[in-house]
Amino acid sequence: MSTQYPSLNALSAPLVERLVADAGLLRLDVRQEPGGARMVDAGASARGSIEAGRRIAEICLGGLGTVSISPTGPIAAWPNSVVVHAADPVLACLGSQYAGWSLADETGDSGFFALGSGPGRAVATVEELYTELAYKDSATHTALVLEAAGGPPSSVVAKVAEATGIAPENLTFIFAPTQSLAGATQVVARVLEVALHKAHTVGFDLHAIVDGIGTAPLSPQHPDFIKAMGRTNDAIIYGGRVQLFVDADDADAKQLAEQLPSTTSADHGAPFADIFGRVNGDFYKIDGALFSPAEAIVTSVRTGATFRGGRLEPTLVEASFA
Amino acid sequence: MSTQYPSLNALSAPLVERLVADAGLLRLDVRQEPGGARMVDAGASARGSIEAGRRIAEICLGGLGTVSISPTGPIAAWPNSVVVHAADPVLACLGSQYAGWSLADETGDSGFFALGSGPGRAVATVEELYTELAYKDSATHTALVLEAAGGPPSSVVAKVAEATGIAPENLTFIFAPTQSLAGATQVVARVLEVALHKAHTVGFDLHAIVDGIGTAPLSPQHPDFIKAMGRTNDAIIYGGRVQLFVDADDADAKQLAEQLPSTTSADHGAPFADIFGRVNGDFYKIDGALFSPAEAIVTSVRTGATFRGGRLEPTLVEASFA
Amino acid sequence: MSTQYPSLNALSAPLVERLVADAGLLRLDVRQEPGGARMVDAGASARGSIEAGRRIAEICLGGLGTVSISPTGPIAAWPNSVVVHAADPVLACLGSQYAGWSLADETGDSGFFALGSGPGRAVATVEELYTELAYKDSATHTALVLEAAGGPPSSVVAKVAEATGIAPENLTFIFAPTQSLAGATQVVARVLEVALHKAHTVGFDLHAIVDGIGTAPLSPQHPDFIKAMGRTNDAIIYGGRVQLFVDADDADAKQLAEQLPSTTSADHGAPFADIFGRVNGDFYKIDGALFSPAEAIVTSVRTGATFRGGRLEPTLVEASFA
Repeated sequence: MSTQYPSLNALSAPLVERLVADAGLLRLDVRQEPGGARMVDAGASARGSIEAGRRIAEICLGGLGTVSISPTGPIAAWPNSVVVHAADPVLACLGSQYAGWSLADETGDSGFFALGSGPGRAVATVEELYTELAYKDSATHTALVLEAAGGPPSSVVAKVAEATGIAPENLTFIFAPTQSLAGATQVVARVLEVALHKAHTVGFDLHAIVDGIGTAPLSPQHPDFIKAMGRTNDAIIYGGRVQLFVDADDADAKQLAEQLPSTTSADHGAPFADIFGRVNGDFYKIDGALFSPAEAIVTSVRTGATFRGGRLEPTLVEASFA
Repeated sequence: MSTQYPSLNALSAPLVERLVADAGLLRLDVRQEPGGARMVDAGASARGSIEAGRRIAEICLGGLGTVSISPTGPIAAWPNSVVVHAADPVLACLGSQYAGWSLADETGDSGFFALGSGPGRAVATVEELYTELAYKDSATHTALVLEAAGGPPSSVVAKVAEATGIAPENLTFIFAPTQSLAGATQVVARVLEVALHKAHTVGFDLHAIVDGIGTAPLSPQHPDFIKAMGRTNDAIIYGGRVQLFVDADDADAKQLAEQLPSTTSADHGAPFADIFGRVNGDFYKIDGALFSPAEAIVTSVRTGATFRGGRLEPTLVEASFA
Repeated sequence: MSTQYPSLNALSAPLVERLVADAGLLRLDVRQEPGGARMVDAGASARGSIEAGRRIAEICLGGLGTVSISPTGPIAAWPNSVVVHAADPVLACLGSQYAGWSLADETGDSGFFALGSGPGRAVATVEELYTELAYKDSATHTALVLEAAGGPPSSVVAKVAEATGIAPENLTFIFAPTQSLAGATQVVARVLEVALHKAHTVGFDLHAIVDGIGTAPLSPQHPDFIKAMGRTNDAIIYGGRVQLFVDADDADAKQLAEQLPSTTSADHGAPFADIFGRVNGDFYKIDGALFSPAEAIVTSVRTGATFRGGRLEPTLVEASFA
C-alpha cells in the first residue's frame, strides 16, 4: 500500500520548515540542541498563538489535510471554530495525527511522559496500528508533535532516533501544553481523528472511510491542566461534528453513525473535568467511548444513504467553557 | 479586451501541475497516453476526494477564483458547504468554468459524450459565447475538465487538439463522474456559474457583473447517475445562494434579482431527479430557468441598493439528500 | 522588542509584489511614476474587486495575519462576511493596519488628505503609538494603503520618502475609495483593529493582548462617500464581533469586555451616516467610543474566564445596508 500512498514526511517537511522560519511571527522559541534535536516551543515558555496551533495541526496531519479557523460553527455562543478536512482521513488522522506513540523517559529520571503525534510515527511504526494501516514511511528528517509542557529529554530523543533510524539532529520536536493557545487549538483539531479512532475501536473497516470533515468550537484556554484538558475534550465531545464518507452498505454505515458519537458513552452528560474528578484522575477508568464527536453524519458513497447519530450539547459546552 | 484581461491558462497551469503532483495524496490516477493526452482520473476508477474536487473546481475557474469548504452554509442540516468566489466572475465562470464545449465522439464509435469545462475552452473559443465575452486566450498547454465516467477517446482528443492548436501531448483531460467525491464537489461549485449563465439567458449585460460569491451545501454522493445528478442540482437549485455585485441601475438590478433564482421556473418545487423522471430523462424538456441558485442577492455598486429574489428550500434539499 | 519581533515589511513585501503581478486578475491599475512612486489603483479609476480588498487587508496587517471571506457570519441577512485573524494582533493591527499616519499635502496645493495604513508606518514611526509598541521596522522598500479616491501628490510621496528614508521609486501606494469593492472590503477588515484601538484608548495594556479573531458582514458598496463610509462603519459597529485572548486577571478582562463594544457610546443606536449628518459631518464631534465592534468576547488565558460585552444589532445593520 505504501507505494500508492504519498509520503507523510515529504508532504509535511515543508510545513515544519515554514513553521520554524515564521517563529517570530508565531511567537515560538526554536532551539537546536548541540548534538541533539531541534526543539520548537509553541506554548510552554513561548507564548505561541492560535495560528501556530493551526499550522501544528496541519503538520500533525502529515501534510494530508487542512485546518482552518471559521467564524461560525456548531455552537452559537462560541462561534470561532476549528475545521479539519483530510482527503485521506485514515492516513492523515490515524497514520499521522493520532497521539499514539508513548514517549516515556525510561532510562533517565526526568519523569517525562508524552504521547507522540505526527509524521515521525509513520517512520517508526512501533505501534500495532500500522500493521492494520499497512503503511510505513521513510524519511531523512522527521517531526513529532507533543501535547506537553516541555521538550523531551535526551533519553527520549535517543529512543525516537533509534526507532526511526534518523539522527537526533534531524529530528524536530514541537511541543505546547494543553493550556496554551497553540496547544488547545491543535487538540481541538483532533475532532476528526477521534471519530476515526472510535470507528476503529468499534471495528469498522478503516479502508472503507474515504473522506471526512470535522468541526468543533475553539475552546478557551485555561491555566489549570485539568480544566484545559476538560475544555478541549468538551469542544469535541459536546460541540464537535464530523461527516464521514464511507464505502459501505447501509447496515454498516447506519451502525457507524449510531456507534460513533459520544452519546454512546455511559459517562456522557457532564463536563469532562467533572468526570475526570469523579474517577480521581484515573484516565483509564473513563469510558473510552466518550472520546468522540457529539454529532456524526455518515454518508455511504456506495448506496447514497446518509445516517446520523448523536447530538450537539450547547449547554454542556457553555458550562465547560464559562 | 484580451489585452487587459489575464490569461486563464497562465493562471491555471500551475494548479493543473500541482493537482498532478499531488495525485497520491488526492487519490487520482494520472496516465500520459503514448502520443496522446494526459488523462487524470479523479473519480472513475480512481477514488478521488472532496479536496480533489475543490482543486478541480479552481482549475475550472481558470485560476481566477477560489473554492473552499465551509463548515456552515445555507442549509442547517447539511452544514458542510462549497463556497466559490471569483474576482471576475464572468470571465472565471462563463469564460472558463461553464461546461459549454460539446465533446462528442463523431468520428469514432465509442459513443463518448461530455461537455468540456475549463481553460481549454478559452483557447478553442468554438462557442458563440466567446464573441460576447470578447475573450480569447492562447497557450502552449491547456486543460479541460469533464463530468464523465472516463477519459475521451482519441478522436475527441484530436478534435480538441485541432480546435486549440495544441498537440495532444500538451493537453490534460481531468474527469470524474457525478457520482464521485470529486465530481459532486466540482459540480456544486458551479453555484455561481449557473447564476451567471441565467443572467446571460435573461439578457442581463454580462459586463455589468463585477463581483460575485456563491455557496451551496456539499451534496452527498449517490452511486446512481440520475440520483447523483439530482442531488448536485438540488444543492444549487434549492440550497444555493449567490450574491452578485453589478454596475447597473436599480430597475435592472431589481429585475435581475427577481429573474435569477430557480423559483422563477415552472418546474421548481420537486427534487431534480423527480423532474427528470417526469420528462422521461429528456433534459431538453426541463425548463432551463430551473438551473440557478435558490436565493439571489444583487447589490448595485452604482446605486448602493440591494435586491433579493428566491428563497432557500431546506425541506426539498433534505428530501433530495436523504 | 524589535529583535524578537518579525519584520512587518519583510513579511508583507511578497504580498505587495503578488498583488501587482495579479493586477489583471484583480482589475487594478499599476503605474510606476517616472522618478516617483509606484501607484496601485484598486478602486478609483480601476474597477478592483473584493479579492483585491482581501489581499490589500492582508498587506495592511503587515503579513502577520489572514483575511478571508466566509459565507456565514454574525448577521444572517448579510451572510458573506470578512474574517480577520492575527497571531500577534497588536503588532499586526496597531503596528501596521491602523490608519494612523496623517498624509496631508502641506507643501502643494492639491488639497490631498489621507490616512496612511500598512507596513510603511512601522518604518517611519512618526506616530506616538510606536513608542508604546516599542517597535520600529527597517526596509529598503515599503508600502502604504490609503482609503482614498486617488494616489498622493509628489509632495506627499516626498514626505513619506523622507520619513522612511526610502527613495520614492521604492515606495508603493495602494489606494481605493470607500465606495469601491476593494475599499469597502479592506475597511470592514478593520473589525479587529478598531477593537485593539479602543482597548488602547480605554487604557488596557496592549502587551496583554495575545491573540484575536474578528468578523463582520461585508458591507454593500455605495457610490456616495458618506453612505459608503456609513455602511463600512455599521458593519463593524452593529455587525462586528471580536474575540480577544488576553493575559490579564478577571477584573481587567471583564472591564475590557464591558468597555470594548460600541454599545458604550452615547451615539450608539443609529446608522453611522445618520449620526454623521447630525453633527454636520464634523467627525470629531462623534463619540470615539462608537468606533468598535458590536460584540466583544474576552478570554483571559491567565484565569480561563471569558467575559462578554455588547450585542449585535441586526436591525441597524439591515437599515444601513438596505
